[in-house]
Amino acid sequence: MRWGYVLRALGALVVCIGLTMLLPLAFALYYREGGLIPMSESMGASLALGLGLLLAFRKSQADSMTHREGIAIVAFGWLGAGLVGALPFYLGGCFEAFVDAFFESVSGFTTTGASVLTDIEALPRGLLMWRSLTHWLGGMGIIVLSLAVLPFLGVGGMQLYKAEVPGPAPDKLRPRMRDTAKSLWWVYLFFSALETVLLLLGGMDLFESLCHTFGTMATGGFSTKNASIAHYDSAYIDTVVIVFMLLAGINFSLHYLLLKGNPRAMWTDPECRFFLGAVVLFTLVSTFSVFGEVYASFWTSLRYAAFQVVSIVTTTGYATADYEQWPALPQCILLFCMFLGGSAGSTGGGMKCMRMMLVIKHGYQELLHLIHPRAVMQIKLGGRYVSDEVMKSIWGFFIIYLGLFILSSFVVAAMGVDVVTSFAAVAATIGNIGPGLGDVGPTDNYAHFPDLVKWLLSFCMLLGRLEIYTVAVLLVPEFWKR
Amino acid sequence: MRWGYVLRALGALVVCIGLTMLLPLAFALYYREGGLIPMSESMGASLALGLGLLLAFRKSQADSMTHREGIAIVAFGWLGAGLVGALPFYLGGCFEAFVDAFFESVSGFTTTGASVLTDIEALPRGLLMWRSLTHWLGGMGIIVLSLAVLPFLGVGGMQLYKAEVPGPAPDKLRPRMRDTAKSLWWVYLFFSALETVLLLLGGMDLFESLCHTFGTMATGGFSTKNASIAHYDSAYIDTVVIVFMLLAGINFSLHYLLLKGNPRAMWTDPECRFFLGAVVLFTLVSTFSVFGEVYASFWTSLRYAAFQVVSIVTTTGYATADYEQWPALPQCILLFCMFLGGSAGSTGGGMKCMRMMLVIKHGYQELLHLIHPRAVMQIKLGGRYVSDEVMKSIWGFFIIYLGLFILSSFVVAAMGVDVVTSFAAVAATIGNIGPGLGDVGPTDNYAHFPDLVKWLLSFCMLLGRLEIYTVAVLLVPEFWKR
Repeated sequence: MRWGYVLRALGALVVCIGLTMLLPLAFALYYREGGLIPMSESMGASLALGLGLLLAFRKSQADSMTHREGIAIVAFGWLGAGLVGALPFYLGGCFEAFVDAFFESVSGFTTTGASVLTDIEALPRGLLMWRSLTHWLGGMGIIVLSLAVLPFLGVGGMQLYKAEVPGPAPDKLRPRMRDTAKSLWWVYLFFSALETVLLLLGGMDLFESLCHTFGTMATGGFSTKNASIAHYDSAYIDTVVIVFMLLAGINFSLHYLLLKGNPRAMWTDPECRFFLGAVVLFTLVSTFSVFGEVYASFWTSLRYAAFQVVSIVTTTGYATADYEQWPALPQCILLFCMFLGGSAGSTGGGMKCMRMMLVIKHGYQELLHLIHPRAVMQIKLGGRYVSDEVMKSIWGFFIIYLGLFILSSFVVAAMGVDVVTSFAAVAATIGNIGPGLGDVGPTDNYAHFPDLVKWLLSFCMLLGRLEIYTVAVLLVPEFWKR
Repeated sequence: MRWGYVLRALGALVVCIGLTMLLPLAFALYYREGGLIPMSESMGASLALGLGLLLAFRKSQADSMTHREGIAIVAFGWLGAGLVGALPFYLGGCFEAFVDAFFESVSGFTTTGASVLTDIEALPRGLLMWRSLTHWLGGMGIIVLSLAVLPFLGVGGMQLYKAEVPGPAPDKLRPRMRDTAKSLWWVYLFFSALETVLLLLGGMDLFESLCHTFGTMATGGFSTKNASIAHYDSAYIDTVVIVFMLLAGINFSLHYLLLKGNPRAMWTDPECRFFLGAVVLFTLVSTFSVFGEVYASFWTSLRYAAFQVVSIVTTTGYATADYEQWPALPQCILLFCMFLGGSAGSTGGGMKCMRMMLVIKHGYQELLHLIHPRAVMQIKLGGRYVSDEVMKSIWGFFIIYLGLFILSSFVVAAMGVDVVTSFAAVAATIGNIGPGLGDVGPTDNYAHFPDLVKWLLSFCMLLGRLEIYTVAVLLVPEFWKR
């Protein structure tokens, strides 16, 4: 591994992050509530660090990158973003301990939305803007990662999407990635602009519209209000947020094709149909479960059920209702949604619909195999055969996800947290959702955990966000051998 | 499918079950507490039904059986045993509703040990003997099923054990099964006799010794006391039961080899090492978690922790402590043990150690694959390569297990049961354990559930006991086509 090359890439990333701090800086200047000094200091520090790395390793440019270098850049890139992003919170005195600032920042960049802030509204708006911006930047990173980087690294079945783009020669990987990234970012930018305008029309000011757009499009979930979206108590805002959470949970290359004038791609895509079908089914079941039990009116039931199902399945984590007060069935559904997650190639987290579909198909095929032991069968998705290699990669993803979920829950439980909260906190962070059940329910936050748990959950957020493999592989000694 | 042939086999099974009713009948005669009339009626009915089937389909003898016929005999055989076994409870007036009698009987034959009896000690000993005997008969069935039948049906990776016995030609399958069954039953009988004697020495009478032996060797968990093994409060009895639960959780073909004078087989068997290693690790962690927190003495902590870990991981379900009062970590460990289960080829339930090992190996291999994308790798177990076909079968098992676990939990939750109890009740029945968490914890029982939930959980017990595939395949329309 050429570490110089890796550090050079990290330097470029840190410079970019530093530059984006201009936006919160502008809001801090405008509102004059504080936050100006920590934002400026953080920006200066980021630029200095980034440029320092770029200069120190300026000779390390490489034409092609190896598998291991790609993994290292992705994993340490997100970690570095988390560290640099923590500076404004730490320097701004939002938290006493650095671990809290780091947790909040990692939660932002991984688009999780789990918070250790106990009073969000007490923060100056400059810092709140930075908090929401980390979501939006993380979302940008994820789109590129899942549609332009992971397919070539062969991570967790994402190689399925390799066939979607014309196969580049290894040394043309970087220009190809840049093109893909640009096209998808236009889509992301377009949807973000649209949502901001729609939220402005709903009565939010520019600051609130932007922050909530960032939280929606990245499926993050940070709000500027302690009560999250429930604060606005507006059916219009709920609807806008539901629609854009859904859009953010769909593969962005389908959006790209749609905007290019090809709506058929989205309609015929099996993963998109599965995702929307699951949303409709779960919303209906939840609606009928809460109707009469929690809410007297059918439309109110539908409004809150739809919001919570979409919020959790897309792994956004915004809340308009305290679903812990709901009956057991919708709670179970939401718990399942935490593991299901959005589509591959969306900004959503979780295991992803594509993997769940293939895994279910495999199970059914094995039942058929028992009836016809001599028949040769292969799994199909959208009319195309799925190779055994892809299936193995998905199964590997499945077991490492579950294995690390269980192990991490054990560690959290060992720190004195109760059983339900332990499992829910890990599920909600590894799935990049935010709120869980128990003491991390929609009305709670993560502030009450011991420091060690906060470090571990930060690790879980990175793990889940980078499709498990990219972080888990760092734990294999083989990775570090020359 | 030749239904005549299937019904003939079921007839033979029902006759056998009817004959075994002689043992509880003898106890009912001796104790004269009641139970004599329902036991006699049930025996008469079973013999009449079984002989009737044998006579009606006497011409349906077949030399070889097809896959589908094998599956149908296994699945309907266990269902039939559950129905016939419910007669003594129903006719004896233990329950008002037939579903309760059926639940108790299925729980017995599947060696689950979940009970809907609220006062066990109120039952006449004849009926209690029958209750425990269903465990022991179920355990006999399971040993043959997992080591002589399933490997040839290719169910859930059990074909790994096909290589252990010299491969017979298809038409020699039945004599081969008979030989295997006989050898293994001798081992089962030997251990059962040994435990009965040891329990007699511990101060139990013959009735109690036999009943608790049946519950142990089958990893069932029915006790004759409301307080389960805790009733005796004896370190000696705890130790005996721990040792025999462990033995029952190990592959019986290893026991057979051991008794034949080959102890090396057990020592080198990777699954046995994994199983015992997990027991030691989980026991130590649980001991240190409860030491000082729940129990003042280290040895007391070790005694209760070891008992509970072994009881749950072998899926027996006996209790000496209310582990719901323990800290979160040992509760999480016990929850995980519910899914892990014993060894393949033992009487234990759950997913089985062999599958868990292979699935973990697969996950690790995929991580290595990411580092060396071009390397060709194959999974090894005990020095032998595991075919892709076996792995696919195991992954199929894994997903169908989890899928039906989730679906069933949803249905239970929809009936108004709380979230934790819903998941725990399904986990404890599909894994054939018995006690779970929440309202089905070690001090509770299953009596309070609505009837529909009892039917569903009975189905889950059968599902788990017959390695998922054998029951799940009945739900595939393809199975029923000519």
